[in-house]
Amino acid sequence: MIRVIAFDADDTLWHTERLYLGTKTRFMQLLQAYQSPDWIDARLLETELRNLQHFGYGIKSFTLSMIETAVELTEGRIRGSEVHEIIALAREMLQTPVELLEDVEPTIRQLADDHRLMIITKGDLFEQETKIAASRLGDHFDLVEVVSEKTPQTYRAIAARLDVDPTGFLMVGNSLKSDVLPVVECGAHAIHVPYETTWAAEHVPNDVANQYHFHRAHSIREVPEIVAKLNGRR
Amino acid sequence: MIRVIAFDADDTLWHTERLYLGTKTRFMQLLQAYQSPDWIDARLLETELRNLQHFGYGIKSFTLSMIETAVELTEGRIRGSEVHEIIALAREMLQTPVELLEDVEPTIRQLADDHRLMIITKGDLFEQETKIAASRLGDHFDLVEVVSEKTPQTYRAIAARLDVDPTGFLMVGNSLKSDVLPVVECGAHAIHVPYETTWAAEHVPNDVANQYHFHRAHSIREVPEIVAKLNGRR
Repeated sequence: MIRVIAFDADDTLWHTERLYLGTKTRFMQLLQAYQSPDWIDARLLETELRNLQHFGYGIKSFTLSMIETAVELTEGRIRGSEVHEIIALAREMLQTPVELLEDVEPTIRQLADDHRLMIITKGDLFEQETKIAASRLGDHFDLVEVVSEKTPQTYRAIAARLDVDPTGFLMVGNSLKSDVLPVVECGAHAIHVPYETTWAAEHVPNDVANQYHFHRAHSIREVPEIVAKLNGRR
Repeated sequence: MIRVIAFDADDTLWHTERLYLGTKTRFMQLLQAYQSPDWIDARLLETELRNLQHFGYGIKSFTLSMIETAVELTEGRIRGSEVHEIIALAREMLQTPVELLEDVEPTIRQLADDHRLMIITKGDLFEQETKIAASRLGDHFDLVEVVSEKTPQTYRAIAARLDVDPTGFLMVGNSLKSDVLPVVECGAHAIHVPYETTWAAEHVPNDVANQYHFHRAHSIREVPEIVAKLNGRR
């Protein structure tokens, strides 16, 4: 029996990657006098990946990476006004209203009737708490965990704290790398609901994913049926 | 009986404000050609306070505030190399080894024998987890909570989750505003252990503090004796 259903947040419950892509486009426009969009894009990703270990995830890290990339790309010729615009982009991102994915609200409402629901999200605590409050979904979740990384150890610790056997734990999320494979490694269940795009740092090759047993859905609205099947089978 | 003893982390278990002050001094040196140190200091604090609601606490927020202040103070004349130096300051801050306050290790070790210990710290999840791991104190604590704000509601929720009555809960920390007054408001116990300096945003006037009943200590090593007294009295 599935006792706890946990959801990832960014790009599972609400749009996030879209916001990053939009900001990246404006960042490339800002620097178009200095370099080509493709070159800027590649250098930004490089900076982001290098900074992850120092700065972690989230909009503030992303912004510091944009500023650093801008300084490097322009060989120090970046203007103060341009740095200011990058910080303004960050503040705008942080103030963008939360936009739920289609069917999220009715599905969460339906599942909350019979299950203990939680959110397990990676990233910046301050940003995630702000978004959860803005989503108005908070009341449906018994527990919200903001974690710095999603490893099998992360999920094992959460299941232990909830006193739930892995076979009674289901995770739903858009990232194979963070929401699916480490969960399956713990002997728990996972449903992969891909988002329209995947950030390069979260990419998993097909031949790796194919070694794991998990469920696939096109939309969150398929989750209740998969849960019913999982419960019926046991 | 005190059942749970919770500790703040920054400037209670390890030095933090010192690191910020050191970085601030280097920031003022970097910009000394443009403005006087006092003026830079005042403007930086202004930017920090304004950004708290958007960016939250921590080194990344502080860095974005430094960059923003630098752009404004120089009226956009800041050079790319100077922006780069500010980001390098941030990376250095994040890589500075954790330095425990005096007597922290033996006191925590002693208290852990008879009590359930936890850390309740405000700020950036990624930074705090990194510091807890680096402190090598993690094993003495049953639970670590990184929160975005420390209000009475925060403490009430934690006590409820631990199934502890407020009268059995003790908080130890250096900030009257965050670690002491909201705890006392919940009917729980608090010990104030001031740090060598207090960040302006955490300042509480004496006449406000005097309306609350809490314990005062000069060093964390006085905590076990206060706990013993609290337990003896009941």
